[in-house]
Amino acid sequence: MDPRVEKIRREFKPKVKPIEWRGDKLVLLDQRMLPFETRYVEARTVEDVATAIRDMVVRGAPAIGITAAFGMVIALSEKTIDNIDDALKTLSLARDILSKTRPTAVNLFWALDRMYNKALSLVSTTSSVRELREGLEEEAKKIFEEELEAEIRIGLYGAELLEDGDTVLTICNAGGLATGTGLGTATAPIYVAKMMGKDVSVIAPETRPWQQGARLTVYELVNNGIRTTLIADTALGLVMYKRMVDIVMVGADRILLDGHVFNKIGTLNEAILAHEFGIPFYVLAPTSTIDPKSNVDSVKIEERDPDEVRTVRTSQGKVYVTLKDIQVYNPVFDVTPPKYITGIITEKGVATQPLSVNLRKLLKNI
Amino acid sequence: MDPRVEKIRREFKPKVKPIEWRGDKLVLLDQRMLPFETRYVEARTVEDVATAIRDMVVRGAPAIGITAAFGMVIALSEKTIDNIDDALKTLSLARDILSKTRPTAVNLFWALDRMYNKALSLVSTTSSVRELREGLEEEAKKIFEEELEAEIRIGLYGAELLEDGDTVLTICNAGGLATGTGLGTATAPIYVAKMMGKDVSVIAPETRPWQQGARLTVYELVNNGIRTTLIADTALGLVMYKRMVDIVMVGADRILLDGHVFNKIGTLNEAILAHEFGIPFYVLAPTSTIDPKSNVDSVKIEERDPDEVRTVRTSQGKVYVTLKDIQVYNPVFDVTPPKYITGIITEKGVATQPLSVNLRKLLKNI
Repeated sequence: MDPRVEKIRREFKPKVKPIEWRGDKLVLLDQRMLPFETRYVEARTVEDVATAIRDMVVRGAPAIGITAAFGMVIALSEKTIDNIDDALKTLSLARDILSKTRPTAVNLFWALDRMYNKALSLVSTTSSVRELREGLEEEAKKIFEEELEAEIRIGLYGAELLEDGDTVLTICNAGGLATGTGLGTATAPIYVAKMMGKDVSVIAPETRPWQQGARLTVYELVNNGIRTTLIADTALGLVMYKRMVDIVMVGADRILLDGHVFNKIGTLNEAILAHEFGIPFYVLAPTSTIDPKSNVDSVKIEERDPDEVRTVRTSQGKVYVTLKDIQVYNPVFDVTPPKYITGIITEKGVATQPLSVNLRKLLKNI
Repeated sequence: MDPRVEKIRREFKPKVKPIEWRGDKLVLLDQRMLPFETRYVEARTVEDVATAIRDMVVRGAPAIGITAAFGMVIALSEKTIDNIDDALKTLSLARDILSKTRPTAVNLFWALDRMYNKALSLVSTTSSVRELREGLEEEAKKIFEEELEAEIRIGLYGAELLEDGDTVLTICNAGGLATGTGLGTATAPIYVAKMMGKDVSVIAPETRPWQQGARLTVYELVNNGIRTTLIADTALGLVMYKRMVDIVMVGADRILLDGHVFNKIGTLNEAILAHEFGIPFYVLAPTSTIDPKSNVDSVKIEERDPDEVRTVRTSQGKVYVTLKDIQVYNPVFDVTPPKYITGIITEKGVATQPLSVNLRKLLKNI
């Protein structure tokens, strides 16, 4: 038990709770409506959970993992299941359904595998479906608590890199809304630094096409008392050229062992610009985001509906900004090669260059 | 007379005419309504012209220059002027009003000075206000025709750099809509290459906050038969990483003699990314865009209304994408240092590295 971790766990009171488990259902803050409307979606079936992930009611790699884990519990509550064999079949089917919702989110597969493996281990000691369900519920809650603890540790490592008066550039929303805990990954050092009495402000780019920066990050940070300035994605270069940024902190959807980082489209732009201007560029993510199996060419970069670029989410819903038949290329992620990354901050420590050596070291040592 | 220039002048039939002079008024295509609505604004007074420039009914450095030039003619039509002294006073006042509409557009000052100097030269030979007005009208038309010829020459130089099958990345709209002629600067080589039988396609980034890429460039290019793909500004890095771009061609609002280029916010991002990926990056602009007097630190970068970032122009008008009270930094231009620029293509030829030497040479030689 690290007293610094426990202190932050006690003292941090997030203003927004994106995921709440209520024993038989998930109550999810509908992030598609933010910042204009605070609406919750209830998920009572596996299909509800899959839809919520697919339609981005819930978003962000860790939050997707937590939601999917509770989805596995919901699988056993959805209907009456008499015997342990049917329960395992139901869980296997739920895992299949949930794993197909977002092809690039490694946390999703990680959480589903962990829940399924837990189920296999439980059935070796019990033949009670009720006990299996209770064991899985405990496991899902543990995933949530471990996630929060990981974020607190990330926040502590990251806050050491922040000086009083610093301005942090981020991208998208790798905040408490994205992880489900209220603390976040890329935002954790900012919240922790503030608790330490450091005055840190943030520049948040809009992050088209989903505008998570304009809709979520500014909303979350301002509600938590952090001075935040919104910019268009096009202004990234100029804010660095003008030295308005001291450090860049972004999240990650998937980190390869050689240090390649898959994250929200636009991350590569920030990384290369920061590298060119000599501004430190850090990726913040729990080690559950590390994918030890894939190589850079085997990861499929998800392309989404062209209408996401043709339209914008506004206070009046989704409206067109261009002609409806215009051809669009809409990749959701990009890949940042390790040479542009100063360090990767995880709950287990900070891996600096050479990343391909130090990421492995960090995973082994602790 | 260059026969290649005359051939293109004859054969290029633009589908969109953004500026039309009708003897006593300007008819301006209201570019704020595109691509959803084709609406024209009539300017019959200097104040009308100033408002049209300030509110971006007309936009793009060369189009602003042409519009302002006709604004000086309108100054003498607005009311009855009896003597040549009053006419000169009226022109001086009109120049003051028009020069304050957009502080970064060097073409604006250039066109206004040229018109005013023409007036001074005319009054040395005539005391007729009617003759003065006719002389100025001729000068404004000459500015338009010279602009078109310059663009044709830019198009010819640029088209030599394009191979059959190439994909050009641009930014904002440095097209026929921006220059007022229908041919454009950054788009001229694309149109000219097409006339030469080369199959060239374009990737156009949205270009927030005004979305000129999504609203104007795709509209103009597709209407002129060019295959065009729209991307979010965040996807710039990935399209280069994936080698989907062969060459970058952008316009310029102001070029300094040392090779620094002021252009639409986001240009610096493209230049640095292209440099990093070894993709040629060209700036295309008439020599009237070259500002021989300023240095990089003396140019004021215009900041505009924060609501431009908080809102988006859509088919349903201007709507909010974030909270109304969020703090915003909204610079309209950025500055690209010469080291990221492969070459600057003008009507007088192509200046390559070192730009500070070759830009001067190009201006002197011809």
